[in-house]
Amino acid sequence: MKKLIKGLRQFKAKYVSTHQELFEQLSQGQKPRVLFVTCSDSRVDPNLITQAELGELFVIRNAGNIIPPYGATNGGEGATIEYAVQALGIRQIIVCGHSHCGAMKGLLKLYSLRDEMPLVHDWLKYAEATRRLVKDHYSQYEGEELLEIMTAENVLTQIENLRTYPIVRSKLYQGQLNIYAWIYNIEKGEVFAFDPESHAYVLPQSQLKTDEIDETLLTEDLLNGNAIDNNISEKQTVVEQPQEFIFDADQRFPITRLSKDQMDRIYRGSRTN
Amino acid sequence: MKKLIKGLRQFKAKYVSTHQELFEQLSQGQKPRVLFVTCSDSRVDPNLITQAELGELFVIRNAGNIIPPYGATNGGEGATIEYAVQALGIRQIIVCGHSHCGAMKGLLKLYSLRDEMPLVHDWLKYAEATRRLVKDHYSQYEGEELLEIMTAENVLTQIENLRTYPIVRSKLYQGQLNIYAWIYNIEKGEVFAFDPESHAYVLPQSQLKTDEIDETLLTEDLLNGNAIDNNISEKQTVVEQPQEFIFDADQRFPITRLSKDQMDRIYRGSRTN
Amino acid sequence: MKKLIKGLRQFKAKYVSTHQELFEQLSQGQKPRVLFVTCSDSRVDPNLITQAELGELFVIRNAGNIIPPYGATNGGEGATIEYAVQALGIRQIIVCGHSHCGAMKGLLKLYSLRDEMPLVHDWLKYAEATRRLVKDHYSQYEGEELLEIMTAENVLTQIENLRTYPIVRSKLYQGQLNIYAWIYNIEKGEVFAFDPESHAYVLPQSQLKTDEIDETLLTEDLLNGNAIDNNISEKQTVVEQPQEFIFDADQRFPITRLSKDQMDRIYRGSRTN
Amino acid sequence: MKKLIKGLRQFKAKYVSTHQELFEQLSQGQKPRVLFVTCSDSRVDPNLITQAELGELFVIRNAGNIIPPYGATNGGEGATIEYAVQALGIRQIIVCGHSHCGAMKGLLKLYSLRDEMPLVHDWLKYAEATRRLVKDHYSQYEGEELLEIMTAENVLTQIENLRTYPIVRSKLYQGQLNIYAWIYNIEKGEVFAFDPESHAYVLPQSQLKTDEIDETLLTEDLLNGNAIDNNISEKQTVVEQPQEFIFDADQRFPITRLSKDQMDRIYRGSRTN
Repeated sequence: MKKLIKGLRQFKAKYVSTHQELFEQLSQGQKPRVLFVTCSDSRVDPNLITQAELGELFVIRNAGNIIPPYGATNGGEGATIEYAVQALGIRQIIVCGHSHCGAMKGLLKLYSLRDEMPLVHDWLKYAEATRRLVKDHYSQYEGEELLEIMTAENVLTQIENLRTYPIVRSKLYQGQLNIYAWIYNIEKGEVFAFDPESHAYVLPQSQLKTDEIDETLLTEDLLNGNAIDNNISEKQTVVEQPQEFIFDADQRFPITRLSKDQMDRIYRGSRTN
Repeated sequence: MKKLIKGLRQFKAKYVSTHQELFEQLSQGQKPRVLFVTCSDSRVDPNLITQAELGELFVIRNAGNIIPPYGATNGGEGATIEYAVQALGIRQIIVCGHSHCGAMKGLLKLYSLRDEMPLVHDWLKYAEATRRLVKDHYSQYEGEELLEIMTAENVLTQIENLRTYPIVRSKLYQGQLNIYAWIYNIEKGEVFAFDPESHAYVLPQSQLKTDEIDETLLTEDLLNGNAIDNNISEKQTVVEQPQEFIFDADQRFPITRLSKDQMDRIYRGSRTN
Repeated sequence: MKKLIKGLRQFKAKYVSTHQELFEQLSQGQKPRVLFVTCSDSRVDPNLITQAELGELFVIRNAGNIIPPYGATNGGEGATIEYAVQALGIRQIIVCGHSHCGAMKGLLKLYSLRDEMPLVHDWLKYAEATRRLVKDHYSQYEGEELLEIMTAENVLTQIENLRTYPIVRSKLYQGQLNIYAWIYNIEKGEVFAFDPESHAYVLPQSQLKTDEIDETLLTEDLLNGNAIDNNISEKQTVVEQPQEFIFDADQRFPITRLSKDQMDRIYRGSRTN
Repeated sequence: MKKLIKGLRQFKAKYVSTHQELFEQLSQGQKPRVLFVTCSDSRVDPNLITQAELGELFVIRNAGNIIPPYGATNGGEGATIEYAVQALGIRQIIVCGHSHCGAMKGLLKLYSLRDEMPLVHDWLKYAEATRRLVKDHYSQYEGEELLEIMTAENVLTQIENLRTYPIVRSKLYQGQLNIYAWIYNIEKGEVFAFDPESHAYVLPQSQLKTDEIDETLLTEDLLNGNAIDNNISEKQTVVEQPQEFIFDADQRFPITRLSKDQMDRIYRGSRTN
């Protein structure tokens, strides 16, 4: 507690004093452009990993970055989504899972939670589609690999759930909303984004339209391999032909399914090799 | 989106590369010491305002930093609280509201939300005790002042709700859990903490035990008035006599009530004068 | 049934005929001063044990004297509390558990109820904070003792729940509502009241302010030991110094926690010695 | 409060001391024969009006003696009914409304409650069948008369609801449960019981089988007109031919409908003439 309180004072002394204009502006109201839904996990900090400033990200956080289907609960997720899209006019939603997720581990041993953590047990009901799908289709995996798959599939399950909200459905219908599936790798500090075309998690540049990708983005960080493992060859291929993977605003999120084949090659391959 | 993706790369290039040890350690697991419950508002960044590192704060965020009473919803809040306290062994919970809160504004015009944002309307039911209390006891206030009071009282309402969770009640009983009520002022970047003794929001130093308050904390930032308005005389008084306001770990959160009189003098006074 | 119908006639013939003025008055409306929440158990009769007349006690009775947190159910408890406090202006609420409570026994073997009595099982969810707390902190007890502790703690749990109701929170805030925790011992016909100062169940005189305690109350019944076991020495000590245990109307219900140590000495001690 | 505490001592000194055997027996367990569902109204005391002893009546009380249909709520009513019938083996249930009922008055002006007492408003949803039926079929009545009809019909509505509980349905099916509809007149201290044959509220003797009606019941209280108004001629007729109105255990509660015609003549007629 002492550390946090000291932090409050440091923040005030060093950050606030040097960003007077920003704070002045924030006091007028918020105009975030992105709703960022992620896990409560202490190792995930949306603002830090995206280097976003105060005022840019509207954030929902709960155990497992779960979004119950519309009408399934009367909890805060639905209300906050409604507020974000309707009252704030947000047009981009990122659902971001992460590696080593405790909720996903819980999903792997669901029954043992019933007595010990009944609320967690019940909450994971909204990731049951993930559990079922993984159980039915990934029976050959186990351990860390299974956990990775669970995590990757769960973000897609939650996007399916998200699409059931009236305001979301209406905005998607009008092409006024884009939804992105991300996975944050907590040990590498790296994000992968789901690419609906290839059904694979790839580097997030593929989320951009061609004209949004400037030289800087392509060259400095990526093409020079700066801070990126050299062995992610497939993903580099992706990046080199960005025009093929443009996510058109009119196209809405098409199929929330991992290509099992590509998953093996690309997402998981990139991390375990 | 482009900005965020650029941010991801900057984070990887500049932050991750210089914190290798931290990321190595985080990959082993999380051991956060604090559950931080706050609003989804884009202008609030828990890690930034407390200068907390990755791994320190387990975070719940929803519209209005609302915690429905135990059993009232099947949403994510209860499950996440249960996971934080039981699975992670967290012993400190901060419920943090903030100025200019959209959810609290909604509470002031609840009926107009019924048709336009039904999920938000229903969600605000769990802040009904706030609305009712403010309506009954602060009828002389309006506008910004009323909103401030609503925000301050709502944090206390949510702590009443938090106390109904089985794991919370059990840990409070043993003196193994402390709950703190904070308000973050988004235009000043400043936090006030509820002091159960004086029923007022004061500088958060009062949350510390005497032996946790070192010279640095008292003198550098506060007594020299560094980054603090000179006219907050009452709060300075508080800080100068910290021993009187020590919040004993054995004492648990006693009465969640604002002293209206003191609220006028201290919390609001400090901000509007 | 025959017995009851005979009773109806006796009541009419002997009671109604001799209380004409009371019945005349009752037909004008009710002005009860106390909301009495207790168990459905046939061995508990609120009016008899308090010798209250018709018109004095507004009564809620269900299995286990349980009060679900605000919003947790859409059952009758919340509505009846709202009506009592708001429409009738009641300012005193007694939550009264009792020894040998079947609902509390059910709580001790909760899982066995799941199939056999599913509604009871689900209902006891609102006493889960009691079950959890007792499981975590009283593992050394069993049998009758454990049941007594469960019962005593449950009344406090239910008061935590009661405090989440908007009208209750508002009235507590203004000091216009007092809440009392009672335990009725069905074999001795005796009531113990929770004393928030000492965290112990004591004789209910401690709930009164000094000026409400007249000679009669102290001497006739208590100091002469009339109808009281001689071996309840601790409780007599309490009563001999009533001024120390006065429950100030302004003070609201502070900490709903039993002092385990004092519980051993006073509440349970008084009954088992 | 002082009065109640004095009452506790009087009860202990005068009642407990003279009923030692009863209290000894009650400490062994409860064996109530009747589940008595009635209103929280302070003017209704089930044990007093039936002259029942401790241990005889298992009691549910809430605002309006309402029993939500099975599955409609997760409140205490269903659980308590289940416990009564299944765990305690109770085979007789009395649902008892009363004159001047505040909940029924609320039902007459339902919409005005929405804002002021939302929980009461929502709770009365389970008496909506009463409101609708009365609105559709008794439009010619108003004021006190309408309130009486509402009250009388509501007891029957609640019995319809009661019949939806699995354990109730099963026991009714086996002929192991009888349900009785009562109205308690608070100004006269008198009970009327619904007679399914005549669809009218009559003196409760009609609930008994022939062989349960002994001389005492017929002559002392009734035929001599002891404590009964002379002008209740219709009801006396009923009583003089009790064999016609026997409620056979095998017959279950048949139609919960007031004969509007007989209601005019008998129930209301008996009270207003």
